[in-house]
Amino acid sequence: MSKIKVLVYGGNGALGKACVKFFKNKNLPVGSIDSENNTEADINFLLNFSDPWVAQKECIHEAVSSKLGNDKLESIICVTGGFAGGNTDSEDFKKNCHMMWQKCVWSSCIAASLCTKFLKEGGLLTLTGANAALKGTPEMIGYGMAKAAVHHFTKSLAGQNSGLPNNTQVVAILPQVLDTPRNRKERPNADMSTWTPLEFVAELLYKWITVPGERPPNGSLASLITKDKKSNYVIV
Amino acid sequence: MSKIKVLVYGGNGALGKACVKFFKNKNLPVGSIDSENNTEADINFLLNFSDPWVAQKECIHEAVSSKLGNDKLESIICVTGGFAGGNTDSEDFKKNCHMMWQKCVWSSCIAASLCTKFLKEGGLLTLTGANAALKGTPEMIGYGMAKAAVHHFTKSLAGQNSGLPNNTQVVAILPQVLDTPRNRKERPNADMSTWTPLEFVAELLYKWITVPGERPPNGSLASLITKDKKSNYVIV
Repeated sequence: MSKIKVLVYGGNGALGKACVKFFKNKNLPVGSIDSENNTEADINFLLNFSDPWVAQKECIHEAVSSKLGNDKLESIICVTGGFAGGNTDSEDFKKNCHMMWQKCVWSSCIAASLCTKFLKEGGLLTLTGANAALKGTPEMIGYGMAKAAVHHFTKSLAGQNSGLPNNTQVVAILPQVLDTPRNRKERPNADMSTWTPLEFVAELLYKWITVPGERPPNGSLASLITKDKKSNYVIV
Repeated sequence: MSKIKVLVYGGNGALGKACVKFFKNKNLPVGSIDSENNTEADINFLLNFSDPWVAQKECIHEAVSSKLGNDKLESIICVTGGFAGGNTDSEDFKKNCHMMWQKCVWSSCIAASLCTKFLKEGGLLTLTGANAALKGTPEMIGYGMAKAAVHHFTKSLAGQNSGLPNNTQVVAILPQVLDTPRNRKERPNADMSTWTPLEFVAELLYKWITVPGERPPNGSLASLITKDKKSNYVIV
């Protein structure tokens, strides 16, 4: 087994699977962190997402340390996510806010803390924000708050003395709608010509991992835009 | 006892006490929500900040409902806060992130949920953000994320169908450094001419509560600026 070069946090979700598949096709050895195995990954690190935050962090640090030893990674790609709607008057307002915080912010923070120990200097960390959260999100308040926190985290990580290895580059991708099997099932009549294919995202991340000169500036929020089935990104 | 018109969430903290005192001097009947009584308030609602989020919300909803009955409030002023520094490499990174989330975001969300039930139409909700969180905060990451979430929450609440009563106005105040006893004790050699007096904030909030025409636009972030001991606010 090759030594892994990249960790995909959320490697068994729709976008995570697409990334692992793409990276493997390019012969980039990759590990997956998720609650279930991704059978295409070189190594799987299993997490129980319902464990407390600190317990998850300690579990994953220990597991990664035991596999990597003193080796360093080129990149950590955090593509965990999820969705919960609802406004302040919703029955589940607080429950949903907390769930979004756990799914988006906890995983982003653990990914960043993994970088402090296992990422090489000049490596890449990517996080996953949301285009929608660039404005207020009155009907999906918990989602917007958590994603806004991820955007802010991206800017903090890019600042002086954020605790990351020297010359780490941090970029958040901000999808609009990703073309996932779940979205196709739940919204069969939507205009899919504006949905961003998972392979586009995987290819973009691969380029940023392997060609540092292609990366957006440190701390960038890269909004993923798809129009007439053509995808691109714009720094916002 | 007069029926209360305003609730101060965090009414026994430094800024909360200043608000309660100012409002009482203006004969505005006021209730305090905090973990300990504010003896100047007309009513105290006690919370255990270490309880789970949903339990805190239910406890405070029940207590406020039993006192107010069908009466409605003019305003809910949320001035809870706190501070925890640290970057991604700090020992307490996750603990501090979680604490800041609890102190800033939980209380803001509970304050907003109280508005859905107890605020009159056209009333005012104020939240407390932070000027520092308008940029990345690499050495106080959890603080910045939580305050950025509060800023986003403010914009969401001001949007259509956020769940608040009709014509509610929502404003976040963004202090730089408040002139509190604790800050004076901890930073005795700082330049205090740029610290914002608590009475300035209390007077500003009083004006917004009582003169709707004086309120900034719905969803505003009002940065509190003090220079040469003169304070003002700027919408950012």
